[in-house]
Amino acid sequence: MAGDEPDTTTPLWQPVTRSRTYELVLDRIEEQIRSGALSVGDRLPAERDLAAALGVSRTAVREAVRVLEARGVVRSATGSGADAGTVITALQSHALTGLIGLHVALHTVDVADIVRARVALERESVQLASRRADENDLTDLRVLLEQMDDPDVSVEAFNQFDADFHVRIGAAGGNRLVRDLTDALRTVMKPRMLAALTELSERPEDLRTTLKRLRQEHHQIHRAIAEGRAVDAANAVEAHITGFYLQADLT
Amino acid sequence: MAGDEPDTTTPLWQPVTRSRTYELVLDRIEEQIRSGALSVGDRLPAERDLAAALGVSRTAVREAVRVLEARGVVRSATGSGADAGTVITALQSHALTGLIGLHVALHTVDVADIVRARVALERESVQLASRRADENDLTDLRVLLEQMDDPDVSVEAFNQFDADFHVRIGAAGGNRLVRDLTDALRTVMKPRMLAALTELSERPEDLRTTLKRLRQEHHQIHRAIAEGRAVDAANAVEAHITGFYLQADLT
Repeated sequence: MAGDEPDTTTPLWQPVTRSRTYELVLDRIEEQIRSGALSVGDRLPAERDLAAALGVSRTAVREAVRVLEARGVVRSATGSGADAGTVITALQSHALTGLIGLHVALHTVDVADIVRARVALERESVQLASRRADENDLTDLRVLLEQMDDPDVSVEAFNQFDADFHVRIGAAGGNRLVRDLTDALRTVMKPRMLAALTELSERPEDLRTTLKRLRQEHHQIHRAIAEGRAVDAANAVEAHITGFYLQADLT
Repeated sequence: MAGDEPDTTTPLWQPVTRSRTYELVLDRIEEQIRSGALSVGDRLPAERDLAAALGVSRTAVREAVRVLEARGVVRSATGSGADAGTVITALQSHALTGLIGLHVALHTVDVADIVRARVALERESVQLASRRADENDLTDLRVLLEQMDDPDVSVEAFNQFDADFHVRIGAAGGNRLVRDLTDALRTVMKPRMLAALTELSERPEDLRTTLKRLRQEHHQIHRAIAEGRAVDAANAVEAHITGFYLQADLT
């Protein structure tokens, strides 16, 4: 056993890592989540109580809560009613959108990379949807197709229905992580897509041609999902996404 | 023009949305990033100066910086040297890992959903790597294969090399977002995979069989990438990922 003991004749200086106080608070909250003591819908103790229990400042507690908010793990509500306090929540795509959106703005993530990531995730989405979509899902998707088919639709409305269509397919697929990632990537791209469509508006003939093609592709994807043709749906969505970005030169 | 003016005869009460102070600080910093005035490597002004410039408390500035840290947009260093201060950084996978990891702990994201998201992203990774991997990439991957092939390798070390192998493929593919997402999902799954391998260690014959299969699959993926067979590589990585999780009953 003596052989396992550290050699005490040579001093060994390990660098001291000073965790900032809010990180220690974060660790404690995460421990409670990982152990299952805190789950979705539960409330964190009031800031004052948590600070006292952990022996830290209220500032440190508040900083930790901000990080959890940014990760979409808690939602804070001000006030004193039944909804007040800091509540544990399920992942919402806005947390991912907030994270990825800024990195696009910083150019540390290329638009072309986002397009390929979207293709990878949406191929999975439509294949899942082809296997699992029920009547309800298909009806919702059909309503969105009709809204996009309206000849008087504005480009802003079209862009919104288009985003909703892709997110709705993600929801029909039933994989929450794939849906939220898809949603976040689509949201990040939305201003660029709208700008591309708006620019096209100045050439009405080109806009008409583009919208016609996008509509046909959406119908094709919907048909493949409805008929359970998973691979066709995947190939259609890939052609649809890459086609638009290549044409609009967004990559 | 008068027709465009709001109807002033009917009062219209819009709910007041009170943004919290740190959110306003966050907006200002994000504006600077989106306008390109702040880019990777730049430093934020010191907390005290930024608080004075924006007319807010230092607490509000610090909370905003914590959120940006959680999103992997800035890195804070304490001290007074050349590295001190808050520096704008590129996306790092730990920001995604921190976000997704907690949601797995909260059971708001299923393990099966993560496995499918990994398959979708890694199919893309290996296809990109099949087209773009250079000699350097292939050598690094070969070294990891050899480390895993060592008959005396511990399950902990094997699990680490295995994770490194997948992340290295992502890097070879050159799509930073796909790589970071893959990395985050692999990291989130690491404790479960290690637990599965450790449990197998109690049945040495089963462990040997499993490690043998994983090794063969890794070699198969590496060969497909080296020979530029993108679709074979994609199918091999899908079989590899789903095979392990199904066998280990981790889903």
